Amino acid sequence: MSYNTFGHLFRVTTWGESHGPALGCVVDGCPPGLRFTLAEIQAWMDKRKPGQSRFVTQRREDDIVKILSGVMMDADGETMISTGTPISMLIENTDQRSKDYGEIARSYRPGHADFAYDLKYGIRDYRGGGRSSARETAARVAAGAIARKVVPGMTVRAALVQIGKHKINRDNWDWGQVNENPFFCPDPEMVPVWETYLDGIRKAGSSIGAIVEVVAEGVPAGLGAPIYAKLDQEIASGLMSINAVKAVEIGDGFAAAELSGEDNADQMRMGNDGQPIFLSNHSGGILGGISTGQPIVARFAIKPTSSILSERQSIDADGNNVDVRTKGRHDPCVGIRAVPIGEAMMACTIADHFLRDRGQTGKTR
Amino acid sequence: MSYNTFGHLFRVTTWGESHGPALGCVVDGCPPGLRFTLAEIQAWMDKRKPGQSRFVTQRREDDIVKILSGVMMDADGETMISTGTPISMLIENTDQRSKDYGEIARSYRPGHADFAYDLKYGIRDYRGGGRSSARETAARVAAGAIARKVVPGMTVRAALVQIGKHKINRDNWDWGQVNENPFFCPDPEMVPVWETYLDGIRKAGSSIGAIVEVVAEGVPAGLGAPIYAKLDQEIASGLMSINAVKAVEIGDGFAAAELSGEDNADQMRMGNDGQPIFLSNHSGGILGGISTGQPIVARFAIKPTSSILSERQSIDADGNNVDVRTKGRHDPCVGIRAVPIGEAMMACTIADHFLRDRGQTGKTR
Amino acid sequence: MSYNTFGHLFRVTTWGESHGPALGCVVDGCPPGLRFTLAEIQAWMDKRKPGQSRFVTQRREDDIVKILSGVMMDADGETMISTGTPISMLIENTDQRSKDYGEIARSYRPGHADFAYDLKYGIRDYRGGGRSSARETAARVAAGAIARKVVPGMTVRAALVQIGKHKINRDNWDWGQVNENPFFCPDPEMVPVWETYLDGIRKAGSSIGAIVEVVAEGVPAGLGAPIYAKLDQEIASGLMSINAVKAVEIGDGFAAAELSGEDNADQMRMGNDGQPIFLSNHSGGILGGISTGQPIVARFAIKPTSSILSERQSIDADGNNVDVRTKGRHDPCVGIRAVPIGEAMMACTIADHFLRDRGQTGKTR
Amino acid sequence: MSYNTFGHLFRVTTWGESHGPALGCVVDGCPPGLRFTLAEIQAWMDKRKPGQSRFVTQRREDDIVKILSGVMMDADGETMISTGTPISMLIENTDQRSKDYGEIARSYRPGHADFAYDLKYGIRDYRGGGRSSARETAARVAAGAIARKVVPGMTVRAALVQIGKHKINRDNWDWGQVNENPFFCPDPEMVPVWETYLDGIRKAGSSIGAIVEVVAEGVPAGLGAPIYAKLDQEIASGLMSINAVKAVEIGDGFAAAELSGEDNADQMRMGNDGQPIFLSNHSGGILGGISTGQPIVARFAIKPTSSILSERQSIDADGNNVDVRTKGRHDPCVGIRAVPIGEAMMACTIADHFLRDRGQTGKTR
Repeated sequence: MSYNTFGHLFRVTTWGESHGPALGCVVDGCPPGLRFTLAEIQAWMDKRKPGQSRFVTQRREDDIVKILSGVMMDADGETMISTGTPISMLIENTDQRSKDYGEIARSYRPGHADFAYDLKYGIRDYRGGGRSSARETAARVAAGAIARKVVPGMTVRAALVQIGKHKINRDNWDWGQVNENPFFCPDPEMVPVWETYLDGIRKAGSSIGAIVEVVAEGVPAGLGAPIYAKLDQEIASGLMSINAVKAVEIGDGFAAAELSGEDNADQMRMGNDGQPIFLSNHSGGILGGISTGQPIVARFAIKPTSSILSERQSIDADGNNVDVRTKGRHDPCVGIRAVPIGEAMMACTIADHFLRDRGQTGKTR
Repeated sequence: MSYNTFGHLFRVTTWGESHGPALGCVVDGCPPGLRFTLAEIQAWMDKRKPGQSRFVTQRREDDIVKILSGVMMDADGETMISTGTPISMLIENTDQRSKDYGEIARSYRPGHADFAYDLKYGIRDYRGGGRSSARETAARVAAGAIARKVVPGMTVRAALVQIGKHKINRDNWDWGQVNENPFFCPDPEMVPVWETYLDGIRKAGSSIGAIVEVVAEGVPAGLGAPIYAKLDQEIASGLMSINAVKAVEIGDGFAAAELSGEDNADQMRMGNDGQPIFLSNHSGGILGGISTGQPIVARFAIKPTSSILSERQSIDADGNNVDVRTKGRHDPCVGIRAVPIGEAMMACTIADHFLRDRGQTGKTR
Repeated sequence: MSYNTFGHLFRVTTWGESHGPALGCVVDGCPPGLRFTLAEIQAWMDKRKPGQSRFVTQRREDDIVKILSGVMMDADGETMISTGTPISMLIENTDQRSKDYGEIARSYRPGHADFAYDLKYGIRDYRGGGRSSARETAARVAAGAIARKVVPGMTVRAALVQIGKHKINRDNWDWGQVNENPFFCPDPEMVPVWETYLDGIRKAGSSIGAIVEVVAEGVPAGLGAPIYAKLDQEIASGLMSINAVKAVEIGDGFAAAELSGEDNADQMRMGNDGQPIFLSNHSGGILGGISTGQPIVARFAIKPTSSILSERQSIDADGNNVDVRTKGRHDPCVGIRAVPIGEAMMACTIADHFLRDRGQTGKTR
Repeated sequence: MSYNTFGHLFRVTTWGESHGPALGCVVDGCPPGLRFTLAEIQAWMDKRKPGQSRFVTQRREDDIVKILSGVMMDADGETMISTGTPISMLIENTDQRSKDYGEIARSYRPGHADFAYDLKYGIRDYRGGGRSSARETAARVAAGAIARKVVPGMTVRAALVQIGKHKINRDNWDWGQVNENPFFCPDPEMVPVWETYLDGIRKAGSSIGAIVEVVAEGVPAGLGAPIYAKLDQEIASGLMSINAVKAVEIGDGFAAAELSGEDNADQMRMGNDGQPIFLSNHSGGILGGISTGQPIVARFAIKPTSSILSERQSIDADGNNVDVRTKGRHDPCVGIRAVPIGEAMMACTIADHFLRDRGQTGKTR
């Protein structure tokens, strides 16, 4: 089954392929009365768009978002106000080089979705990976920009914390650094290390995996739900839906397997302001599937892109053994551009749960 | 929002609390014509039920499943045949000791859902954790037993691969050992190590985390879907919905972050039988969200239960600082009993995708 | 596809057949903090239960509801308080006479679901119609009793307005009469007419259709939504899901086809209390799919039951021509017992939309 | 809640307002391998588009559909082949005259959604009715054109059977006439009557209601499902979601209330070809919510448009009494243009159920 909608009340439906005229999304369920500008949305798009450094694909796309419905223009001629009806957003594809893909129309690139798509559908848009292309994630970022407006006071930020075996030093974490380098790296000491490391990989036509950490702050307590709409479950679902993601963890994640109950328990005390205080955040801000008011912390792993210059053994659609190397423009580390996408999925998931809790109508909120 | 249904076409709705008269589930969307016996279902229940060794909670529940609807009895008086209508299953609670929980009616156990439930609902069934109790998972195992029948030829097995820092040696992996020890451990050399280790934890009234690996074999290629119903996404969602799970990975998972594109690519060759062969399974049997026909491999981490004998700092519902220790019967390592639950969620998820692909009707299948 | 859940946020999943041990429902999404007694729920059940007059089936069922989960008992030992977790309700089948159905195990009763079920599923619980039996509606009434508690101030009432060609005189409408006669008839002058008419039908072993009108008052304005969750659309869906219903209309319904725009427009004026007043209610309380605050008015038609004593031409599962007459206990006018069921579906639909608007959480409401 | 998606597996999400730059839809869940041309889709659009006779609104829209995703072009450069990914379709608004609507920006047109939208959302796109405009239905017709391709051998046709009190003579029914007059009237003798009648209404600036009948032939038996996804229930839901529809009936509909069980039962006999034959079709092709293979017959009533030249009493957003007359371009009988829309909703609903039954994947079908 093809299924291209994410969310239950804040519903994002994305459409479009890498090499068609355009791609986009419909954001349905957005409450009325939200105020935003095109420039605000575009700013998030610009974080994700390709071609911004030598460490990401050299495809050139401006990724300009057009809003086709669901808003009225305020008197200032710039601020859009959501009306509660679906917001349709469209992004044109401008830099398509279909000739790059001619050779792989019938060969399956190892590690790519080619083989699985053909098995499932019996037909496949091989140009740029078609629907399995990471270009689909542009629409997610646009939707995420709207989602950020849904939850008042929420901040969602992400950073790259590991490339290959090179992990940041968490003691150096500085959110202010994240947008100051081409890696969304919060540790300034790690930047030159990654630079050298990725240059080597890039020149070799190879690729490498990475880990992204996403943190949402200002999330109201009480969001999420037992049993099958747990906030952590749906965050995991959202992050795992990103291309190339192979693992997700919340709070301490896999490390919790090595903790004792004493160490893992986030103890509490009443604060001077009469508000509960947690003395630690092993849980990643979620208990029993419900937000506690602490920062929500998730991490996800992105595998290395399979588009590499080395030949790999494979087969083609006719059942022949073939050797495949990918000559198009690709990312040595797709994890870099996954950073704003992870933010978008986190923002959409929390917005969805916020609306489940609070309802969707303007007047009654 | 309370949401207690899992799945889209194979839909499992669970209900019931730890200390009510019963709990159960409704399995809706089950295709007609499946044949099974109560004994088959009960066998899976028995794997999960408490009180089977000193390493799990001493609560005594027989967890006898009754089937109330959705089947006709075959002439043998034993085999049930699904009719395509909802299968309602009920499990009575027999060993409830509400007195154990009196003290924590208003105090929040650190690491438990108590605080989050009160924040969300303003009312909480404190007896045994109410709906957040792991007893809910009995219903999942019953549903999973049905799910196994939906996909012909599918086998779903799980094993415990790590307790605390003690990891199994994968070279010793022997599925035949898994049901021969109280840990569902596939490595016979690790069993005595875990035994000694957990005895220490148990006697100290402490607890420890663990990691479970689930493997589904015989899964048809082509299940799953782009973009927001990826098979790995939904497996992650299912596993993350299990109590105390904090992390999920597919295939190489987090380790993929450290791999190069060359190493990560699962190369292919045509086999002698004319079928494609993968030379490795880094992907865990899923590419682009779609099953490839390889075994599907997932792992998940379970945090240590927060029910421990040591006092922990907390607050109560009236905003007082309190110290909490949990005196009820509990599991030193809840990861053990998570093994059959992980199997059940994997089976249900795959069954759901199988029906999306194949449709649900008897005659047309 | 088998699909047995009604509603989006207030979700009712029903299960059970006419001749199994029990039937029931799970009400999921019910907000916490609702207060009700078993007696209140039972009162609605008693309106629907069979055997209450000679004009309905003589099957004897007490239809006693048991609540298995989702509530805590208040200190008075009688009032239940919803906790926000799923409410499982169970009703035992006590008067099953499977022998009555032996002859039709393989013959298709004309007008019944027998033929369609066999075509779809290839297997059919012929005993009492199995899942297609009107006994399923007992679970709806139980769910409706909860739904009534969800929307503060809402009243949902229904009445029978037509049997065969005998229509009530609307000038005689008296809600106080509805529960004073075996027909839920609001027109006391019509009662003796229907009595005589139905006695004739009953003695002839025949059956007749009817029309029910449902009115919901005290429904907040602003419920419902464009475009595909219109309140009238979902009311139509709910009512059309009742067995034997063939038509639904809102407000003037089919009569609107004969009205001019001038006559159909519900004009408005500001009332002395500063609230808008509608001068008529052709719309049935819904404009653009959204409630206006006026009473919501719907009508639905129920076909005559096909279980009649006269022989009808049919076929059997082996492809033979057969003649079928139904000898079991049946309703001369199933429309009578549809009255409380129509109320339940209306209540559930409005509760669902209420929660969409207001959210589901206790603390935040 | 705003909800703009119709269908479960064949999912149509529509977006766009009457006066924005464009409107459109995303058709998700369409199986791969369907073949169609733009011209085929456009032909259905042309049936619905405005300005085709003096009896419908004089708004001039070409309603040209663009397909932005989800298809590959066949070698003929004309035939599109669906790939199984979402099909995004876009229709530009070209004839918008916002000045026509200035006066009603704050006044509520009686019978329109204006008041309800303001109550719900607190903000309203008053230009042309915004999202509540019938222009939204252009997207439905485009989706319906795809849906027709999903079910092999299915034909869906509709006709106008009543305007005001003027009903067609069913004995004159001729499908060949339907596209030969501006009313989609199947009775050639009625055409001049309606012509004269509607001319009078048009010149008076008034409006009138109508009834449409939709018939689907070639629908496989076995589609639909108990209990809450009955085929008739979902057809009712789809038709009731069309603007201005107030009533829906299946088969004999409301007339079934006056039938005896003997008359209503559709008797059966085995045909000479070994296939079952129904001797009548009171049921409208659906029994127990499941298609029988007979033609599926539904009717729906459309109220008169509330946009009329006569002044009607109303209020404005500031709580003043006002008198409103609508000066824009409008339809004297919106029922006419509802004919292709009714076809589209029927086609989409059946396609959805077809995919539920058969699954959605190319290779496995």
